[in-house]
Amino acid sequence: MLILMGLNAPRKDVEKVKEKIVSKQCTPHEIPGSLKLAIGITGPSGNLTIEEFLGMDSVDEVIRISKPYKLVGREMKPEDTVIDFGNASIGGDELTIIAGPCSVESKDQIFEIAGALNELGIKFLRAGAYKPRSSPYSFQGLKEKGVEYLAEVKKEFGMKIVTEAKDTQTLPLIAEVADIVQIGARNMQNFSLLEEVGKIKNPILLKRGLAAKMEDLLMSAEYILSQGNYNVILCERGIRTFETHTRNTLDLNIVPVIKKHSHLPIIVDPSHGVGIWDKVTPMAMAAVACGAHGLMIEVHSHPEKALSDGYQSLTIKNFKSLLENIEKIASVVNKRMNYAELHVDK
Amino acid sequence: MLILMGLNAPRKDVEKVKEKIVSKQCTPHEIPGSLKLAIGITGPSGNLTIEEFLGMDSVDEVIRISKPYKLVGREMKPEDTVIDFGNASIGGDELTIIAGPCSVESKDQIFEIAGALNELGIKFLRAGAYKPRSSPYSFQGLKEKGVEYLAEVKKEFGMKIVTEAKDTQTLPLIAEVADIVQIGARNMQNFSLLEEVGKIKNPILLKRGLAAKMEDLLMSAEYILSQGNYNVILCERGIRTFETHTRNTLDLNIVPVIKKHSHLPIIVDPSHGVGIWDKVTPMAMAAVACGAHGLMIEVHSHPEKALSDGYQSLTIKNFKSLLENIEKIASVVNKRMNYAELHVDK
Amino acid sequence: MLILMGLNAPRKDVEKVKEKIVSKQCTPHEIPGSLKLAIGITGPSGNLTIEEFLGMDSVDEVIRISKPYKLVGREMKPEDTVIDFGNASIGGDELTIIAGPCSVESKDQIFEIAGALNELGIKFLRAGAYKPRSSPYSFQGLKEKGVEYLAEVKKEFGMKIVTEAKDTQTLPLIAEVADIVQIGARNMQNFSLLEEVGKIKNPILLKRGLAAKMEDLLMSAEYILSQGNYNVILCERGIRTFETHTRNTLDLNIVPVIKKHSHLPIIVDPSHGVGIWDKVTPMAMAAVACGAHGLMIEVHSHPEKALSDGYQSLTIKNFKSLLENIEKIASVVNKRMNYAELHVDK
Amino acid sequence: MLILMGLNAPRKDVEKVKEKIVSKQCTPHEIPGSLKLAIGITGPSGNLTIEEFLGMDSVDEVIRISKPYKLVGREMKPEDTVIDFGNASIGGDELTIIAGPCSVESKDQIFEIAGALNELGIKFLRAGAYKPRSSPYSFQGLKEKGVEYLAEVKKEFGMKIVTEAKDTQTLPLIAEVADIVQIGARNMQNFSLLEEVGKIKNPILLKRGLAAKMEDLLMSAEYILSQGNYNVILCERGIRTFETHTRNTLDLNIVPVIKKHSHLPIIVDPSHGVGIWDKVTPMAMAAVACGAHGLMIEVHSHPEKALSDGYQSLTIKNFKSLLENIEKIASVVNKRMNYAELHVDK
Repeated sequence: MLILMGLNAPRKDVEKVKEKIVSKQCTPHEIPGSLKLAIGITGPSGNLTIEEFLGMDSVDEVIRISKPYKLVGREMKPEDTVIDFGNASIGGDELTIIAGPCSVESKDQIFEIAGALNELGIKFLRAGAYKPRSSPYSFQGLKEKGVEYLAEVKKEFGMKIVTEAKDTQTLPLIAEVADIVQIGARNMQNFSLLEEVGKIKNPILLKRGLAAKMEDLLMSAEYILSQGNYNVILCERGIRTFETHTRNTLDLNIVPVIKKHSHLPIIVDPSHGVGIWDKVTPMAMAAVACGAHGLMIEVHSHPEKALSDGYQSLTIKNFKSLLENIEKIASVVNKRMNYAELHVDK
Repeated sequence: MLILMGLNAPRKDVEKVKEKIVSKQCTPHEIPGSLKLAIGITGPSGNLTIEEFLGMDSVDEVIRISKPYKLVGREMKPEDTVIDFGNASIGGDELTIIAGPCSVESKDQIFEIAGALNELGIKFLRAGAYKPRSSPYSFQGLKEKGVEYLAEVKKEFGMKIVTEAKDTQTLPLIAEVADIVQIGARNMQNFSLLEEVGKIKNPILLKRGLAAKMEDLLMSAEYILSQGNYNVILCERGIRTFETHTRNTLDLNIVPVIKKHSHLPIIVDPSHGVGIWDKVTPMAMAAVACGAHGLMIEVHSHPEKALSDGYQSLTIKNFKSLLENIEKIASVVNKRMNYAELHVDK
Repeated sequence: MLILMGLNAPRKDVEKVKEKIVSKQCTPHEIPGSLKLAIGITGPSGNLTIEEFLGMDSVDEVIRISKPYKLVGREMKPEDTVIDFGNASIGGDELTIIAGPCSVESKDQIFEIAGALNELGIKFLRAGAYKPRSSPYSFQGLKEKGVEYLAEVKKEFGMKIVTEAKDTQTLPLIAEVADIVQIGARNMQNFSLLEEVGKIKNPILLKRGLAAKMEDLLMSAEYILSQGNYNVILCERGIRTFETHTRNTLDLNIVPVIKKHSHLPIIVDPSHGVGIWDKVTPMAMAAVACGAHGLMIEVHSHPEKALSDGYQSLTIKNFKSLLENIEKIASVVNKRMNYAELHVDK
Repeated sequence: MLILMGLNAPRKDVEKVKEKIVSKQCTPHEIPGSLKLAIGITGPSGNLTIEEFLGMDSVDEVIRISKPYKLVGREMKPEDTVIDFGNASIGGDELTIIAGPCSVESKDQIFEIAGALNELGIKFLRAGAYKPRSSPYSFQGLKEKGVEYLAEVKKEFGMKIVTEAKDTQTLPLIAEVADIVQIGARNMQNFSLLEEVGKIKNPILLKRGLAAKMEDLLMSAEYILSQGNYNVILCERGIRTFETHTRNTLDLNIVPVIKKHSHLPIIVDPSHGVGIWDKVTPMAMAAVACGAHGLMIEVHSHPEKALSDGYQSLTIKNFKSLLENIEKIASVVNKRMNYAELHVDK
């Protein structure tokens, strides 16, 4: 259920509405828009009637929401969510580029790659310190050491750090360094982890699971919002189908679909989506063309030596060339690159 | 197996090579390139040795091909196949736009739509006369009457006609009017039909089946080429996955993959791929961005009255707006629109 | 729409009803049951009203059918369809075993295998004369010669022949020798072929396509019934999923589902379903346990020399052992083996 | 790598081998068989040579393992793992029946259902106290209260409790009451949770994820074994495919495949697999017929009032009838029902 009030509604009227909601064992979520103040309600809303709110001061409209997802839906909040990062934002007219290696492998490695990306004007650095891997015998990341290096890199270059929290135990450590906390595809329905990241302040990057329908992805985001963290960025990274010509089947169709149903930003990770570096550039271009708010790209200074996912990583040189292509597409779809200053050689 | 000869090889040397191939119960396929004349060999090539050809006059090189597909592969023909239609071509630097209604419904309907498209400079008109439908009780097309109307439209506007042959019985009639004969997704592995269209001269548009892997699609094209018709255009139109947010899952990943493995043109049909008109434009833009040679778009003057697939058809007005967007993307990927003259209102 | 009349309704009343149906451009389908005579109606039934039939002599009830499939549905015909073959039947309490090699490869081969199967009491011999293959360069069957051998085998052993019609051109030849005409999975939506087999008298074995939903399979069967051939046997043979541990994913779930929605018999082909001979027996047992009316099993006297699908064929010895296991399961589900006389060595 | 020693090898020889393994930063896993004592090695086995072990006392053979999974594979341990529970066992010739409601809903509910099942001789009771749900607004289980009721039920009836651990936080509480700790499908690749359950003593029931290939499932089990907990039971519960006639597609094919590749027991949960109660019995019968070691069945005394998954639960009466059918199939596949005493009314 959704209560719409005038933007200038006196604070006491708003508080009265919220008190009534709480008194019925439900939770109010204040969502300011440009025209109205919306108060979303989650919880056992069967307890509530439209009528009891309609009579209250400053209440303009009361709407029942029929979709299983509430807070993430356009019904609740028609305007796009734009997440502010000071010198960058995600979800608005900037095209976000998040780049970096799959894993932090050593201090030298992460400084070399971050330095090169920083020089290109890239503001968001991705790199995993804790790596969830299908095999217990594969490289699982540098762990604490990796987080330490990320903190140093952040200090040195001032880049925003995007890194994965693979469990609730290591979340506090991750949350200290991460400007954006990533939840991996295999954890998309790890509801205990979702609830925990719903309680922190960091924006969350939520990757779509390999078998997740659009609605499953939105419901997982709903878990996070329902705990009070409204800054969630969705990420398409390929689903599992019968087709084996690519590692996964990058499902770009979800981009316009999500944009219709939800106000949350959606970005695309073509590196995991296709799993082979030479298909990353065309699919990145396609992602921008169909309306994604950004891209997450694996870049490595020496892909052939990478400890994980080297075959899907771009070299710095190929990444530069990708940026040139993306920039042209971005202008067609009325997005601008979020470079501090552009150093792409032409 | 593939025999490479100099471009200036005397005709008699070429004939000798072909005779030797025939004498071993195999079939030679002459494939002229810009640097070499290639002679592809299909059939029981276990009979052949590299050595027996290497000794022949004008033979430069003999190559064994390891892929299951031969004639459609880049190994056999490294250069892109470009199909010439006089004032248009498919597979080169023109971006092909094929547009029109799902079905011919009446003379008025097809003339109204074709007229509007023609005015926009569209050269390829799509419309089905024979419609394969999941239900025997659904509208199956106007059949002979539909073909007749297509012939009249063709005469009136000079547009190229793209229409489906649903079986070998009606193929001769279709082939008379069609500039491009379409093979539908459900017939992609109707091998008897593939062999028949391999024996005609018309270029063939081969749609990917709902469960076809990349290799299956190429093998079906191989059926057509192996009969002597080398003008095949591949078409991605969505595969069947667990996801139901779109009618099918348009798999754009196959575009760069096909372009790597095959010299044949590949176009994309986003209308069937997503099945809802408001997702067609973003996915069409994405298709062009990732390198498709063209688009096939359902357009109807009155989608709400269409006898089939109305919900996925664009109005003329929305189609104009799609063209404007496509044009901008096309220039980024170094393709030019194949308008006779451009009438898009801006 | 469905008209129910008394079983003893005078013939003239039945004819009057049928005439009325025809006069409205619809088609009547007479379906005798044990309690009622049903007259199914297909065509533009929007023309018809319940009332106009209710007033007619001997008409007991008129029912609108809401499912897209009519003739194949339980609504139209609540009782199981049982197809009679003289000394065998399919769809009742006999468990049908259809066995044989993928292809007829030579006169010796088919006589050797058929002889061995006949000795085991097997009544239905499967073997392809025309083989649809993914590659144009694979063995395509012995064609006319294969049909000839099948005719000789039939004469020699009196077995019923199950063999595939891959197109309308060769259908008449196939229909002469086949006791059951098989339509392959890749032709499940070759609607022109479905219509043709709807016009012949032979029972049809319709295999489920690799991407066919339950409803698609029923609609394809509906094509055949709507032409007047009511003897259709459905066959599950594996669908295409992300899983690659088996060639296809045999979807046994469809067996109880089909039995709920349709009166048509459904059998299972585990050989194609799993694609590896050593998984055939357990999955065959599972198929019988969940209620399948029969099995279709690939058996070869020398699988290692088979020209197609050898790796999924059982040896005669392994097939005997499969029969022993199946027999025990059959008795649990109240089915009896349709052996003329049982020669299984124990 | 795998070291095989004689069963009577002196303890000091065994210890020497284990010390050498540890000295190379690897981990030894002692796996006694009926013929040999195997010592599995996990970790960076590139450090090791076959030769250095072959020379050691009592070492008979040293084998390199080529599969990505080691401890779960048949190569490492050819004999079936049988998990002993005193008056019951899983993985041997007993057919395990685990039954109960989706969730503990109240003390009365769980006592009523457990009582009825106990009377039928059922030894394993399933019921969730913590429920992972797609929506944050759905019933999430009675939590601590639920665990408490399970402890009381266990004391009352002496049944073994199978209940899910949804995260590492609640695992210690769950592990106190659970005879088998269940890991849900959505947590199959929650590697931190897998590692934690690898460190406890309780047997683990690991459910296959919706998009998990056979190898993914085995690798997740490997995570658990690699931490020292060798008692893992695998569970097929349906995968996600394009087919929607059932909630999921129960993939019984994996049963014989797992039994070939792994020594771990595999059971089947048809309730989640098909999601509709009336398909549970036939698919349960099929599961036993193809060789599953057991079944996990949702049973509720009042399915229509269940707080979760009621439509897929059997009533006590239907469950009795299922047991009768299963019992007959079990005897065919040489399994015996693990009833303390059989009270099934016939």
